Amino acid sequence: MAGVDSKGECVKIYGDTKSGNCYKVQLVCSLLDIDHEWIAVDILAGDTKSDEFLQKNPNGKIPLLELDGGETLAESNAIINYLASGSALYPEGSLAQARILQWQFFEQYSHEPFIAVARFINKYLGLPEEKADDYASKQAGGHKALQVMEQQLGKTPFLAGDNFTTADISLYAYTHVAHEGGFELEAYPAILAWLDRVASMPNFKGMA
Amino acid sequence: MAGVDSKGECVKIYGDTKSGNCYKVQLVCSLLDIDHEWIAVDILAGDTKSDEFLQKNPNGKIPLLELDGGETLAESNAIINYLASGSALYPEGSLAQARILQWQFFEQYSHEPFIAVARFINKYLGLPEEKADDYASKQAGGHKALQVMEQQLGKTPFLAGDNFTTADISLYAYTHVAHEGGFELEAYPAILAWLDRVASMPNFKGMA
Ligand SMILES: N[C@@H](CCC(=O)N[C@@H](CS)C(=O)NCC(=O)O)C(=O)O
Ligand SMILES: N[C@@H](CCC(=O)N[C@@H](CS)C(=O)NCC(=O)O)C(=O)O
Repeated sequence: MAGVDSKGECVKIYGDTKSGNCYKVQLVCSLLDIDHEWIAVDILAGDTKSDEFLQKNPNGKIPLLELDGGETLAESNAIINYLASGSALYPEGSLAQARILQWQFFEQYSHEPFIAVARFINKYLGLPEEKADDYASKQAGGHKALQVMEQQLGKTPFLAGDNFTTADISLYAYTHVAHEGGFELEAYPAILAWLDRVASMPNFKGMA
Repeated sequence: MAGVDSKGECVKIYGDTKSGNCYKVQLVCSLLDIDHEWIAVDILAGDTKSDEFLQKNPNGKIPLLELDGGETLAESNAIINYLASGSALYPEGSLAQARILQWQFFEQYSHEPFIAVARFINKYLGLPEEKADDYASKQAGGHKALQVMEQQLGKTPFLAGDNFTTADISLYAYTHVAHEGGFELEAYPAILAWLDRVASMPNFKGMA
């Protein structure tokens, strides 16, 4: 598999190793052996709201990719598809790519806002009393997303079909730590088998 | 511009003309003159939760595209990129496509959950007392998203640069009705000019 680095670019990645969205980018770099410079960004210290960072990403979020020429690209899923273009992780073909995108938009709209946010409230904020309702309100939506994944993974080994793609990476990021948001995965055997399948890929790298 | 219909497929689209996410698909079909069958789906009547529909989209959402062979594709932005592939609305090239995707993921994560949801609470639910806090909580995030767009559109005529792409269609859908969610656009001159630019495209079609 040859990713974008085969085009000879030296990329910079702004991220935080504790963030699942940033981990997607780290995992693709590891799987495709993409040479990169990692620039640690501390959200709680206000790094994403500095003038210098907002110049690079007006939306004030990480991960952020900076190319050789200084051009920047935001949004984890856009970044990983770009880095994986030309490799088997993001195969050519408009329908094959649309199928991957379907799962990635599902991730951002129907999965991450429930599972990643519940995990954040629990793991990073320590589930404070005033967030208890918010936390509880995330559970149903998170389980609904897991059921959608379970159904697909009961039919095909990977989300977009027979092959491992960036769709799997996007959904692996927060699914493999879903228990930290209160989502026990025992009831989802196909998801559990898929998590193992992803983690056994050559050059796989775990989250920090 | 030649979209996917030039491949000779006859597509079915399940949607509701009042939904901005469905309007994106209608607009692309109009701009590219894509022959399609529109199947009206009534969310409030429970159509998206019927066994028959869940078979087609386990996530129970519209829009949904059904291809000739019966294969289905969900997620508005995945659908429009697929329909526009091979046309100038979704040009070839991994960086060009990644730039479009960046804006589409921004739309689903940082724009739609604020602007479309505030509009829904106001326009469809009639801003009931018990939703007042929820509605108010959407305003800051919506304005933040509008500021990010304003900054880009002050520099380039379209979101992804010099050319009109599916990124513009994705963000046009709810931005042009943002006032229905309480977002006045007077403070965003570059957005206002862009809205006019989009609406003057050949074969443009307004929302129902
Ligand atoms: N849709 C974005 C979400 C990125 C995101 O929410 N990043 C968080 C860290 S995981 C962040 O930068 N938060 C800082 C902030 O929003 O101020 C993506 O997929 O990249
Ligand atoms: N991320 C999806 C969102 C689609 C969506 O939220 N559709 C709404 C109508 S605008 C829907 O089908 N809601 C029914 C439901 O969620 O039960 C997309 O972009 O297509």
